[in-house]
Amino acid sequence: MTDERERAARMLLCAVSEPGDPVLAAHVAAEGACAVAASLTGPRAETPWGRRARGIHPADLAGRTMACGARFVVPGDAEWPSRLGDLAGLEHDRRGGEPIGLWLRGRGRLPELLGERPLAMVGSRAATGYGQEVARQWAGDLAEAGHGIVSGGAFGIDAAAHAGAMAVGRTVAVLACGVDRPYPRGNARIFDAILADHVLVSEVAPGETPSRLRFLGRNRLIAALGLGTLVVEAAVRSGARSTATWATLLGRHLMAAPGPVFSAQAHTPHELVRRREAELVASPAHIREMLAPMGEEMLPLERGRDRVLDVLDPQVREVFETLPGRGGRSASEIALRSGVAIGPVLAALDELSEMGLAEMTDSALWRLVPGSVG
Amino acid sequence: MTDERERAARMLLCAVSEPGDPVLAAHVAAEGACAVAASLTGPRAETPWGRRARGIHPADLAGRTMACGARFVVPGDAEWPSRLGDLAGLEHDRRGGEPIGLWLRGRGRLPELLGERPLAMVGSRAATGYGQEVARQWAGDLAEAGHGIVSGGAFGIDAAAHAGAMAVGRTVAVLACGVDRPYPRGNARIFDAILADHVLVSEVAPGETPSRLRFLGRNRLIAALGLGTLVVEAAVRSGARSTATWATLLGRHLMAAPGPVFSAQAHTPHELVRRREAELVASPAHIREMLAPMGEEMLPLERGRDRVLDVLDPQVREVFETLPGRGGRSASEIALRSGVAIGPVLAALDELSEMGLAEMTDSALWRLVPGSVG
Repeated sequence: MTDERERAARMLLCAVSEPGDPVLAAHVAAEGACAVAASLTGPRAETPWGRRARGIHPADLAGRTMACGARFVVPGDAEWPSRLGDLAGLEHDRRGGEPIGLWLRGRGRLPELLGERPLAMVGSRAATGYGQEVARQWAGDLAEAGHGIVSGGAFGIDAAAHAGAMAVGRTVAVLACGVDRPYPRGNARIFDAILADHVLVSEVAPGETPSRLRFLGRNRLIAALGLGTLVVEAAVRSGARSTATWATLLGRHLMAAPGPVFSAQAHTPHELVRRREAELVASPAHIREMLAPMGEEMLPLERGRDRVLDVLDPQVREVFETLPGRGGRSASEIALRSGVAIGPVLAALDELSEMGLAEMTDSALWRLVPGSVG
Repeated sequence: MTDERERAARMLLCAVSEPGDPVLAAHVAAEGACAVAASLTGPRAETPWGRRARGIHPADLAGRTMACGARFVVPGDAEWPSRLGDLAGLEHDRRGGEPIGLWLRGRGRLPELLGERPLAMVGSRAATGYGQEVARQWAGDLAEAGHGIVSGGAFGIDAAAHAGAMAVGRTVAVLACGVDRPYPRGNARIFDAILADHVLVSEVAPGETPSRLRFLGRNRLIAALGLGTLVVEAAVRSGARSTATWATLLGRHLMAAPGPVFSAQAHTPHELVRRREAELVASPAHIREMLAPMGEEMLPLERGRDRVLDVLDPQVREVFETLPGRGGRSASEIALRSGVAIGPVLAALDELSEMGLAEMTDSALWRLVPGSVG
């Protein structure tokens, strides 16, 4: 167990610095938190950290933490996620390093919420209905399969991911502000539900507001908490891009969900795939395969009749189901029986014919190709 | 110039065989077309080719060709596309080999229609509106840039590709039936327009109807005529998959357009990307880059203010345009000025803040971050 002097020192260091200050993290790694904290009133008094320390009363910090029902955890605590250690020595966009400490707030316990193989889901605040539906459905599917869903509590993709996950499983929101005043206010209902059963995480002290640096620091935590990161939607400049870079730097699996090419929100996922930074994933099964330990949970080969029928367009499937195995049936008879209009019936027959599932007899009647579907 | 005996022999050989018969192609390559044609009434009389030859009168074939205004071209002719030679010795799905001859019909001349760097566009007959829009827009953009667009004249993606191309440039339809009765009839208007200014291509004789083998043989020609092949939409089993395999076997660039993950029609493009068979392309510029000779037409780096503004969601852009450079403006004032509702304004400010474009002042007003956009 971490002694209380060390914990107080780390709390102070978090409060005097911006999250993911790589220089401070290096000092702590080299000298220890207690020595660095002590130096703020000595040799480091005239650093930005030292100047900020003058306005901070450790008792106030602890009081604000308790007042909102939060807890402050540090490396070595049972609730500290060991994956965060992978951040040590990494730097990007002037942020980096393992966090010095974290405020947690909510009834859930972080390790159980994350599970063995958590997934970070990130994307645009200005998400489309399509993107939000992908985030919601996939987060639900993966949370149900036991994967903790980590996101940033923002509007759009983040909110959809949290909502999808909490409906059936577990979620973690990493904030760029204090856990006492989760931002944005518009997501209050999601934050309330997270506080009841899950957890809010932040590297900045209660009472603090978000800023660009804090968003950047937060993005690195989201990437580090996941075993993989999925980018659902993001326009050309986006926080999701920064999380994606962190995932790559950390050696995490980076995945991207494709979308319509005319959507500005599909730009970054497509670019990540084109640059070979991310793997294209088109279903939760693809994601589970990426997160699975080597050798486990390989996708079954997609073969056989059921699989073929599953993916046929509904109208084409209607037509297919109406085809006789013997004899033959005219296109207009098929239209009558299937309830599909004659135009689409002809297109479907044409398609089924090229797929080797349907054939036209000499008398211009249509039937199944014998043995084409097992 | 090819002598007329050779041309007549090749026409007969096309008529007695299914397109892309790899065994017959090998015989022709080894013995010459005249010798193989002569053998059909001699040593090869009891082969399937020999038996079919008994019912065929060469004069009828030539008559049917002339009657519909078609011409029959063979390797060595000025109109023969030299890229088809790449098919020699290749086999897939029981089809293969360079075609023995081709019927062409239409006022366009094949080499001019193809241009230097033609693109094959293939996809589903049961295409979605989205897929047809991608095919139509991209075919138009590429045809305008001088790329001939090759497709199969089918419903769905093929029709959209031809239509998009012919509006501004050139197109070629490769059929699985005779050029005198282009199939499907529902595309008659497209075929009429192709006959007027472009060209229909087929390996099967006038009067013949399509079949599964003929579709497969046709797919290989589409892939071989293009310098690259683009798959726009295709469900799990689809003729587009076969064209894609041919493109890979031929060493052509294979490209796939992504789409919504919930669409069955996006299955094959996404799988091709996941298996590293196809390159994901999200714009005509990506395709031009693939088709360009090495070193030419690299994409410019996407940077700078205009680029940022271009890809912002329209609402976010409205909010951005309302931000003052100095002082500050409240969110509700921004909502009033931009005409965007307060909820989306808050989401947009949040997004712009993380992008480093907007910041909140101490008095909770919003403004541009100085120097953030150059």
